Amino acid sequence: MPASAADSAIYRSLFSDDATAALFTDSAEIRAMLLVEGALARVQGALGIIPETAAAFIDRASREVQIDPAALGAETATNGVPVPALVAAFRKAMNAPDHAQYLHWGATSQDIMETGLALRLRRVTQIWDERIGDLIAALGRLARRHAALPMAARTYGQAATPTSFGAVVAGWGHPLIRHRARLAEVRAGLATVSLGGAAGTLSAMGPQGPEVRAGLAQALDLADPGHSWHAERDRVGVFAAWMAGLATSLGKMGEDLILMTQTGINEIRLEGAGGSSTMPQKQNPVGPSVLVALARQAVALAGAIQGAGLHRQQRDGAAWFVEWLTLPQLCISAGRGIALAQDLAGAISPDAQAMAANLDDGSGLIHAEAFTFALARHMPRPEAQSRIKALCKEAGATGAALPVLVARDFPALDLTAAGGLGTAPDEARAFADQAGT
Amino acid sequence: MPASAADSAIYRSLFSDDATAALFTDSAEIRAMLLVEGALARVQGALGIIPETAAAFIDRASREVQIDPAALGAETATNGVPVPALVAAFRKAMNAPDHAQYLHWGATSQDIMETGLALRLRRVTQIWDERIGDLIAALGRLARRHAALPMAARTYGQAATPTSFGAVVAGWGHPLIRHRARLAEVRAGLATVSLGGAAGTLSAMGPQGPEVRAGLAQALDLADPGHSWHAERDRVGVFAAWMAGLATSLGKMGEDLILMTQTGINEIRLEGAGGSSTMPQKQNPVGPSVLVALARQAVALAGAIQGAGLHRQQRDGAAWFVEWLTLPQLCISAGRGIALAQDLAGAISPDAQAMAANLDDGSGLIHAEAFTFALARHMPRPEAQSRIKALCKEAGATGAALPVLVARDFPALDLTAAGGLGTAPDEARAFADQAGT
Amino acid sequence: MPASAADSAIYRSLFSDDATAALFTDSAEIRAMLLVEGALARVQGALGIIPETAAAFIDRASREVQIDPAALGAETATNGVPVPALVAAFRKAMNAPDHAQYLHWGATSQDIMETGLALRLRRVTQIWDERIGDLIAALGRLARRHAALPMAARTYGQAATPTSFGAVVAGWGHPLIRHRARLAEVRAGLATVSLGGAAGTLSAMGPQGPEVRAGLAQALDLADPGHSWHAERDRVGVFAAWMAGLATSLGKMGEDLILMTQTGINEIRLEGAGGSSTMPQKQNPVGPSVLVALARQAVALAGAIQGAGLHRQQRDGAAWFVEWLTLPQLCISAGRGIALAQDLAGAISPDAQAMAANLDDGSGLIHAEAFTFALARHMPRPEAQSRIKALCKEAGATGAALPVLVARDFPALDLTAAGGLGTAPDEARAFADQAGT
Amino acid sequence: MPASAADSAIYRSLFSDDATAALFTDSAEIRAMLLVEGALARVQGALGIIPETAAAFIDRASREVQIDPAALGAETATNGVPVPALVAAFRKAMNAPDHAQYLHWGATSQDIMETGLALRLRRVTQIWDERIGDLIAALGRLARRHAALPMAARTYGQAATPTSFGAVVAGWGHPLIRHRARLAEVRAGLATVSLGGAAGTLSAMGPQGPEVRAGLAQALDLADPGHSWHAERDRVGVFAAWMAGLATSLGKMGEDLILMTQTGINEIRLEGAGGSSTMPQKQNPVGPSVLVALARQAVALAGAIQGAGLHRQQRDGAAWFVEWLTLPQLCISAGRGIALAQDLAGAISPDAQAMAANLDDGSGLIHAEAFTFALARHMPRPEAQSRIKALCKEAGATGAALPVLVARDFPALDLTAAGGLGTAPDEARAFADQAGT
Repeated sequence: MPASAADSAIYRSLFSDDATAALFTDSAEIRAMLLVEGALARVQGALGIIPETAAAFIDRASREVQIDPAALGAETATNGVPVPALVAAFRKAMNAPDHAQYLHWGATSQDIMETGLALRLRRVTQIWDERIGDLIAALGRLARRHAALPMAARTYGQAATPTSFGAVVAGWGHPLIRHRARLAEVRAGLATVSLGGAAGTLSAMGPQGPEVRAGLAQALDLADPGHSWHAERDRVGVFAAWMAGLATSLGKMGEDLILMTQTGINEIRLEGAGGSSTMPQKQNPVGPSVLVALARQAVALAGAIQGAGLHRQQRDGAAWFVEWLTLPQLCISAGRGIALAQDLAGAISPDAQAMAANLDDGSGLIHAEAFTFALARHMPRPEAQSRIKALCKEAGATGAALPVLVARDFPALDLTAAGGLGTAPDEARAFADQAGT
Repeated sequence: MPASAADSAIYRSLFSDDATAALFTDSAEIRAMLLVEGALARVQGALGIIPETAAAFIDRASREVQIDPAALGAETATNGVPVPALVAAFRKAMNAPDHAQYLHWGATSQDIMETGLALRLRRVTQIWDERIGDLIAALGRLARRHAALPMAARTYGQAATPTSFGAVVAGWGHPLIRHRARLAEVRAGLATVSLGGAAGTLSAMGPQGPEVRAGLAQALDLADPGHSWHAERDRVGVFAAWMAGLATSLGKMGEDLILMTQTGINEIRLEGAGGSSTMPQKQNPVGPSVLVALARQAVALAGAIQGAGLHRQQRDGAAWFVEWLTLPQLCISAGRGIALAQDLAGAISPDAQAMAANLDDGSGLIHAEAFTFALARHMPRPEAQSRIKALCKEAGATGAALPVLVARDFPALDLTAAGGLGTAPDEARAFADQAGT
Repeated sequence: MPASAADSAIYRSLFSDDATAALFTDSAEIRAMLLVEGALARVQGALGIIPETAAAFIDRASREVQIDPAALGAETATNGVPVPALVAAFRKAMNAPDHAQYLHWGATSQDIMETGLALRLRRVTQIWDERIGDLIAALGRLARRHAALPMAARTYGQAATPTSFGAVVAGWGHPLIRHRARLAEVRAGLATVSLGGAAGTLSAMGPQGPEVRAGLAQALDLADPGHSWHAERDRVGVFAAWMAGLATSLGKMGEDLILMTQTGINEIRLEGAGGSSTMPQKQNPVGPSVLVALARQAVALAGAIQGAGLHRQQRDGAAWFVEWLTLPQLCISAGRGIALAQDLAGAISPDAQAMAANLDDGSGLIHAEAFTFALARHMPRPEAQSRIKALCKEAGATGAALPVLVARDFPALDLTAAGGLGTAPDEARAFADQAGT
Repeated sequence: MPASAADSAIYRSLFSDDATAALFTDSAEIRAMLLVEGALARVQGALGIIPETAAAFIDRASREVQIDPAALGAETATNGVPVPALVAAFRKAMNAPDHAQYLHWGATSQDIMETGLALRLRRVTQIWDERIGDLIAALGRLARRHAALPMAARTYGQAATPTSFGAVVAGWGHPLIRHRARLAEVRAGLATVSLGGAAGTLSAMGPQGPEVRAGLAQALDLADPGHSWHAERDRVGVFAAWMAGLATSLGKMGEDLILMTQTGINEIRLEGAGGSSTMPQKQNPVGPSVLVALARQAVALAGAIQGAGLHRQQRDGAAWFVEWLTLPQLCISAGRGIALAQDLAGAISPDAQAMAANLDDGSGLIHAEAFTFALARHMPRPEAQSRIKALCKEAGATGAALPVLVARDFPALDLTAAGGLGTAPDEARAFADQAGT
């Protein structure tokens, strides 16, 4: 595969997400930076820091100018940041040196890049927020529809007790509701203007620096942090961790689907499962596998970003570059995960018959806990537990069904509770209610 | 070093934190689990699920019984969880089979372990919250005291423009204020009761299951999540990420201190710096180095916990064990980081003379940006920038001071703005205000 | 759980390994450092750098002296390294100042600590090498015994084609053979003396420094690297990566066992599987789950150590501390993984009947590829593939068995190849041969 | 930044490496897979498994056919692997169904993809091997040239004792010599053919399967592993760890350069250092910062690949996809790191005067260890150490130079040893010899 699926004609539809990736392109980045430069000039013009005519000219030009990304490559390789080259190219394109000199007045590269990034991340997280909402709703519908569909709950891969498929779906959805609530907080942190000047003191703007920052924040509808934060990386760290958390919650759904589609388990059918190059019968759970893979990638990339919180002094090129090298891919993979989970939520068909067969494999062992509690009404529970455990062993050795053995030894016992789904149907419906469906 | 500094007489004071570690011992874990079993019985007794006399007996015994951790080892190695052995040992210790049979009624190991963990994490995060508050206050005092103490801001290690030491301290403190606010959210999530029964359906408790969970939550002053969440690992993931984020913010302070104490920079003196086995002159920044190391460890451990969000089906031993293997150490290291940062905040003495010397190394190059903006009042800024850049080169080549060269070429220029601290003093004081000092 | 299972009476047998942990204790560390100090004195005495009588005295004392770890704690917390305190305590214990002054002559803390660690790692890797050899042999026997036992190979969890259980076991064992071969290289790198003096130039030893290093290497049977390597961390990074690689190869065996013991698959029975606190029928694959968890922990810890390869200047406390904080736990978990895999290799009983049932679930779909190739002898393969694919669909829809449908449509077709195990039995036996069993 | 710098006109020259990236493109991947399909047909033709004329036709077509990557996208998104689509497109392009049906005979997607990857990795590692050789040679020349150039060795950022710049360079180079030796091993493992068929048993090829694999290995000049290894991921894990290890060794050089170029330290000048958008005087160590960032990214990506060693059953889509999502970027970053280190090695100019000034800051404290050992010839060393330590304190308090104080108190002491470089020059030259320069 190429370095990123976003740039691969072969793998893009498998691993990438066009809507997210569109915000992580050379041109989207340039566009966002130009927007920031334009707004900065406008604000500085209004405050009399630069001439109003120059400000208006720069502002207008920032919306119209076309900058060729390739023209910035060589200088970016030297300077480590694209802004000096961008400013130079923009100035040249304006063809009005009297005005152009007021471009980028008192700002530093990091101000422009991070405020531009804030604009892009605000957009991308809005897309995700809507998608997650839709995904939660889809899971809500699925949970409600199958709220009372019995299946075997599994712990350590072993049939434990009965549950319902709806409750399992609710278990996928609950963390998403919480992640979505957390996203609101995360977004607020991301949508913060950065304007500190060369090294965080705004000294080139004179005493009006804080006013410029407040004005820029207002102009771009971002928060004014009230101070410079070039080296305070907690917000991006929190965002990265949020994406990793989301990705693993989606990946958990993927893991469950892989296990439920196993040959011999067959509890789920997925529309559009994958084919093999040589095995005609295969219906591979490709989508669920991708969800899991994206989660593992997300955890690794988020770790790199968290580590870049060790940001030295007033600007640390090494730590900052780590963010550049990992954040865009992390965002694209997060976006892909959400979209893919939406697809899967619509492609899931539970197989009630297979679920019933797995619940009752003839052994009846899954009801062992229920029998224990039934028996514990007639004898101390430790004794009940050890009696049932002995019957479980006999069942395993002889192939006899546990309910038959229990009925043999305790003919008076009321076994009707066995097979009960407990709170599962209610939990499924309560989730559906929370999901607004 | 042993596997954990918490268990090393040599390294404990260097890397561990006794107050945090005290909550991650065999006995603390057993104590917490017994508390949960006792409260569960009490609630079930009140609801008539188990006999009230048995409930009262169990509840009282849960506070008095002594369980030897070593007695649980063998069975834990087999079962993977200590609860079956704990329940058996507790029952035996009660010496009242009629009552003892009602212990652990309808619960599963994970319920007991995770509710017990919630109790311990509530305590440990409370300790941290207070400490972080004290740390922020200490940094606030430091920032206020040195709000206007000039020093060189550095980007890429290079002197950039003047700033103040107080502003640098504020840069350490701002993320801590945000982390502390986030902790309130994180704590609320952690302080959640877990009660799902064998596989999340509470089926062994009959229709009263949800009432028991609500009652248990109330009894332990924890939140009632309203459903089972054995396999929903987002809360622990968020907690781990929070610790990693905190640790890197503290580690950033450590990085800065290491750089400021360098021979040849000497901007900070640390009380109690470390000695060498062979070099009598060394004053090693041991504490700051530990802060950085703890941050890197925290990021790695938090990544493992995030990855364990890929929790399969209704209980995934493998994923759950990953949390056990990493969370306690992560907590202890987080606790150590906070305590160590507090120590360091009290041990810092800035050296105003050294800071001044680094600001003005004779070259005056740090004022290059200020000169550019002064000159840009008289000519287009790109021209001003290129004129000053040429003088910077001349200064580098000839050893002449930049201000002298500027005065030579532009005798009329007003250079008084150079050396200004911009917003730095105000930002330092504003942080001190926020820190409540 | 406590910070490390090595220090937990409850969890030690589940997660720790006594033989490995014994080398990561305060006393083992002190013992190793004393050995190095003793050998250093002996070598320096022989070269005339220190008086021979003092050397002999120190050497003897190094084997006899008892140092209380707790006495080193306070000073270690200040200095960051235990060696100054150790040297002081040792000198005091010698009660012979005339000799004691020659202790630690011209060495630095890192020399003593890392040479001592080399001695301990040589021992621990020798233990592992033997264990891995035994594990490979056990897997070799298992592979040979079941070389031709048919089971379904699974890709994406789906039955793919038949294979043999012996071939699956061989797939667990092959990487171990390679890891063991790599260990020989890794061990050679680890078993290297460190002697560089204060900052790597051995200047306090005069021109004889390199001779002392060579002598020390010989005395301790370690390699002489020919230069100082305090800041060259590649060897420890390679060792950490090796442990992570080993752990994931063992964890892969764990993953397979978890899947093979699933209810409804039941292909493997494990002696000594784990019980539940509430479900009498459960036979949880605890050991396999631990193997997987140890692998994930190992990957995280190894990443921290790899990251510490970014070791600044001639000694970087922060980077070095990261190794201390993670390497011991990583070693103990690696040791546990090997021991646990040995236990599991002896506890595995394949269930031939269950394997046969999973191979032939009545659908015969697993033979689809074989039918395609049989049919492709009579028509172009793409056509054969699409004909068989259509029959697979029909089988899925109607519940008819694929072989019946194939026989219906292609009565002349020779289907005897279907069900063949291909190279699986030969591969199993070849592995057993390589395993020396 | 876009998801990968390899696809960014702005950032490509900063972070990417064209020679490496060229092997991770859609077209390079298709080309390699076609080569494998062609060779497979040739070998099968020679063995009589498929008709020789068909084999020849496929083989020739495999070299001539043009496959449009975009045409594979949709089907790849469904199947998870591009091979079914590739085979279909190739067959169609051949326009000779009689021959085309024998394409991909008995192979599985993973065989084609991984053997194709082996071909590409062989090429990319060959490029690196040459580059690393050149880099070592360049460092060798640098070490020899400055073998005796005195500078301060630093531990914990503090001046420790004198060393030479050449010795510091040798410390960068030694690990590279070892990494290069390890690469030879790693390459041998990577250059291994994969041919297992659908699920590792080669059953569709009949008894000649192993012969086909051996033949394919020979045809492509790869090793024949003697068995199927679809699920044995240790080789790719070892490769990833090697890249991470290399990247951190290069990153260590980056860290040192960042510290040596600091304002106030100034020991190194770098040709082509980076400019600021607002500060004319800045000479940012951009290249060294990139080296550090690439190292941190590499460690994170390698961790994901190591984790994917937990590969379930006979093929695990999730685990395999993780490798796809991370390995190409890791390779490109590794390639960039080597190239950038080569650039930097040629851009380094040590500043002997600055180094001398840092060695002798007037305090003479760096000679404290040397004075101790000189004094220890006349009194017990602990006493000597404590006397010198007291003078160090006096020097710190009064500003007097340590040598002056030592001469005052011990006028007869021979201080000529102080300032000696110890083994540093010899070590620098020995490295240069090993580097073949």
